[in-house]
This record gives sequence, structure tokens and C-alpha cells, in this order.
Amino acid sequence: MDWQAEIEAAAARVRDHVVQTPVMTTDAFGRRIEMKLEQVQHTGSFKARGAFNTLLASDVPEAGVVAASGGNHGAAVAFAARHLGHRTKIFVPEIAGPAKIALIERTGAALTVVPGEYANALELAEREAAESGAMQIHAYDAPLTVAGQGTMVREWEAQGLEADTVLIAVGGGGLIAGALGWLKRRRKVVAVEPMTACALHAALEAGEPIDVPVSGIAANALGARRIGGICFELATEIGIEVVRVTDGAIAEAQTALWQAHRQLVEPAGAAALAALMSGAYVPAPGERVAVLVCGGNIAPDPL
Amino acid sequence: MDWQAEIEAAAARVRDHVVQTPVMTTDAFGRRIEMKLEQVQHTGSFKARGAFNTLLASDVPEAGVVAASGGNHGAAVAFAARHLGHRTKIFVPEIAGPAKIALIERTGAALTVVPGEYANALELAEREAAESGAMQIHAYDAPLTVAGQGTMVREWEAQGLEADTVLIAVGGGGLIAGALGWLKRRRKVVAVEPMTACALHAALEAGEPIDVPVSGIAANALGARRIGGICFELATEIGIEVVRVTDGAIAEAQTALWQAHRQLVEPAGAAALAALMSGAYVPAPGERVAVLVCGGNIAPDPL
Repeated sequence: MDWQAEIEAAAARVRDHVVQTPVMTTDAFGRRIEMKLEQVQHTGSFKARGAFNTLLASDVPEAGVVAASGGNHGAAVAFAARHLGHRTKIFVPEIAGPAKIALIERTGAALTVVPGEYANALELAEREAAESGAMQIHAYDAPLTVAGQGTMVREWEAQGLEADTVLIAVGGGGLIAGALGWLKRRRKVVAVEPMTACALHAALEAGEPIDVPVSGIAANALGARRIGGICFELATEIGIEVVRVTDGAIAEAQTALWQAHRQLVEPAGAAALAALMSGAYVPAPGERVAVLVCGGNIAPDPL
Repeated sequence: MDWQAEIEAAAARVRDHVVQTPVMTTDAFGRRIEMKLEQVQHTGSFKARGAFNTLLASDVPEAGVVAASGGNHGAAVAFAARHLGHRTKIFVPEIAGPAKIALIERTGAALTVVPGEYANALELAEREAAESGAMQIHAYDAPLTVAGQGTMVREWEAQGLEADTVLIAVGGGGLIAGALGWLKRRRKVVAVEPMTACALHAALEAGEPIDVPVSGIAANALGARRIGGICFELATEIGIEVVRVTDGAIAEAQTALWQAHRQLVEPAGAAALAALMSGAYVPAPGERVAVLVCGGNIAPDPL
């Protein structure tokens, strides 16, 4: 697939619908780094890019869009679908908690809170999709999702990104696949995973995507059981360095982001910075490094 | 005074010491606006600019710097003085509360928590300054402070500011004086004050700076009893529109900043946006508007 062409097309589609998120340079974390504050994005994460791209490139059925999610992807799909005027039904598991439920509620999408766990919500969502013909959107392993997420790093380059190396947190791999697809080998991409949710690391070790156990403070955003096939393929073809961080390092980076720059982010949003601060990734002398802050949906809601 | 020259000189001085704070454009608040996230600045507010400029332009005595403050200015002075290697003693009134005390503690400055109110801390600070010969820095009504704060809007223009009109919250008037000194009449400056702390409004009505009662949710940052003389002079000479906002409007803007863009700011930091959202300031058709987010030291600390 010609990812650069796909991402160019995605960028043209989502242009008027997503936030061009702010960038900055800081010396506050031990060395000079560039940062992009992608949690400023609609619904608090980069996921809005893939959701808008998918909907804008698709023939959305009359029945609209259905999703089961209490997470960042679900909120992004709900927001984008509502914004584009599609019928939208979201099934949220009760265990997602009041902050995430309120986040999806604010999109204006029709919301059903389902007692119990994710599986219960998913069952209802799939029944609804089958009955109504509504569309579902994959969170990370679909070309339109990956191309949408790829607009993030394309935008960053247009904003003057100078770094040799870009650190990005990985869950299912949609965002980093988009970054690899756009950058190829022009800049080094470093994948950052929690020790307790490292599907990409495990896949590269095994030579194929495999299931991993997931837990830890960033699991609700980075806790994919298995890395996406698109991500695995791009990581294998282009090459990628994977580093892993502890929950403690993630929590320290969260604190540092608030204390240095008043950016309050969820654990996943601080994981890439954690790799640098904890020494999980050590840049070479003179290597210019950029860190993506990718999500801000902290729970409980601070307000 | 040639404010543009003063601000140019200040910008050259503080360049390597302050954060070039990020800017963005958003449609999330009812119309397209530009925003600058100045709460990303060291110690969470623009005050670091004036503090660095003053120290870098001054012959700081061997005895260093003394301040009495539990607020944004005190934190900025403590940070800048420590950063530049000056002895620093800060006297914080106990009523400043644990979040503000921790903020100053983190700068590494020698800190004395003084039982009781601001006046008690001020008394100790002044005794210390008199005995040791240490320097004090005015929070808003000194040329070097104003010139330092003026680097904010100079920087914003260098980042591509397009707006016809810039909305800025006012306390003692140091920041807005800097903005007026830099912009003159090239762009319109709108001063935003809380209803319950409106020293500039009262001064312009009275024809001279007068004392006003101060209260309300933004009073710990915008609650100057009397507008600074420099601000009053510039506002009178250049002309300025002052609008006032309720505490309710400020709280709504705080919530909106978090919900739309995951920016968690103190009440003062949301006041300028509140003017736009509440209709206290109504732009003319086609008028391009920019809003400064100026402070993020929310209490209690969300972490």
C-alpha cells in the first residue's frame, strides 16, 4: 500500500474536522525535546483523526455508526459520527466509569450504558449492527484508521519538526503504523510500550502477532491483546526500536508533565516521555528527539 | 518610554530562559479563535517572563532575592532566581494552601511558611530584605516586569498571530501593559476583569487608579486592589476596551477548556475565554479574535 498517498488523502479529508494540535520545545525533562500535544485533539486523543478519515472516506449507511467502547476510540467515533451528522449508537460497559461515560455523553451520541463488562456491551453493539446494518470502525487495524492517525506526524512535519527520532506510545499500533507509513526511514520511530502491555515487543520476538496478557495503569488505552497486522507488517518491513517502561516511570512522567507545563494527561499520554525520562530510551550524542503526548482522558475527571 | 525597544531588549534577555509557549486555533468555543497556552510557561503563568527579565537586567545583590508571596508571581520569582543562581528566600503565608506552597517548594528556593495571612509574610520578607540588602521584584508595576510580560505578545506575533483583537485577563495590569506597549494600536487589546476584581475598569471610570474591593474565584491571581500606574497610563494613552465577567462565566470557560482541549487552568487562566463565551465581548462581523490562556495553577493540585 502507498501509505504516503493514503495519508495525504486522509489529511485532505480531515483538514477541516480535526484540531491542528500545538507543538512546543522544552528543556524541562533533562534534555531539549520537541513535543506535540495531541491530547488537545477532539475527545482528548489522536483517535479522532482515524475516526474522521474512516467516516469521510466511507459510504456510511443510513443506519449510521455503532460502536462498543468506553475508551478513546469509542469517544472519537461518537464525536466524529455525530459531527458529520450520522446516526450514532454507542454501547458503553458500566465498568468504563463515570468520566469516560460522561466523555461519550458529551458527544451527543445515543448512549446505552450496559451493565457488566466490555463483552456485554460488544454483544449488544454487534446485535444492533447486524439488525440495523450500521457500520463499525476498527480501533487500529484498518487502512483508513491507520492513514487517519498518520496525519498526526505529517502535520508535525508541516509544523517544523526537526527531530531525528520520534517516540510514540503503542497500544494496538494504529498511530505508530501511521507514523511509520508516513516517515518510512526518514526519521527513526521508537515504539514505547508499558512492561505490562507490550503486544508489539512480543510480536517482534515471536515473529508474528501473538496474544499477550495486559494490565497496568495505561492498560485502558494501550492494553491491546494483540498488535494490529498493519502495524506488525510496517514495523517488520521498515524496522523499529521498541522500548518498555514501568508503571512507575509512566506515573513519574505524568507528574512531570503537570509540574513542568501544566499538561494533565492520562498514563498512556505520558508513556513516550517516560521512556526518555527513565532511560528506557537513551539517545545518541547529538540525537534530536521528539515526544508525542497522545491522550488526556484521565480518570477521574479533574473537574 | 519606548516600550517596543524595552520589549525587544527583554526578549533577547529571556530567550534562553522562558518557554516559547504553544499556540493553536480552535472552533470549539462557538467561533474560530487563536489561543496561546501561556500556562505551559515555567511555574504555570506568564509571570516567569517578567521575573527573568528583571533579574537578568539587574545587578542582583550578593544577598539575592526576597519575596513574600503564595501566588504566581512569587513562584515565578523563586524559579527564575534559583535558575540564575541567586540566593532566594520566599516567605509564603500559610493561607496560600498546600498546592501553592508545593509549587514554590519545587523551585528549590529557601521557603518559610509564615503562620497567618499575607501581611505577616510580607512583614518578614521586608525585614529580611532590609537586614540583608536582598532585592525585591514588583509583581506588575515596574518597567522591567512590564517589558518582560510584553515578550508574550511579541512571541505570539512571531508565531503567526493573525487576530485583529486580543483578549487578555487583567489583575494588576503588568501583562496587558506589556501587550499595549508592544502592539500600540496595531491590534485591539481587550481587557477582561472579573466583576468582583475590576481595578482597571474602576480606574478608567474614576480617571485615576483607585482601590477596589476584590473577591471571587479568580481573586488569588487577578485580585489586585489597585491597577498599576504603568498599565493605567498606557490604557489611557492608547485606549482599551474593558469587559467584565462573572465567576459563573469563568467557571464555565474553565470547564470548556478542559472538555474541548484537555487544558486544566486556574480561574484567571480562563477569564479571557469567558468574556467571549459569555458574550461580555461580542466581536464585530469578520473580526478575528485571539484569547490568551494565562495561568494554570489550579488548587487543589490535580495530582
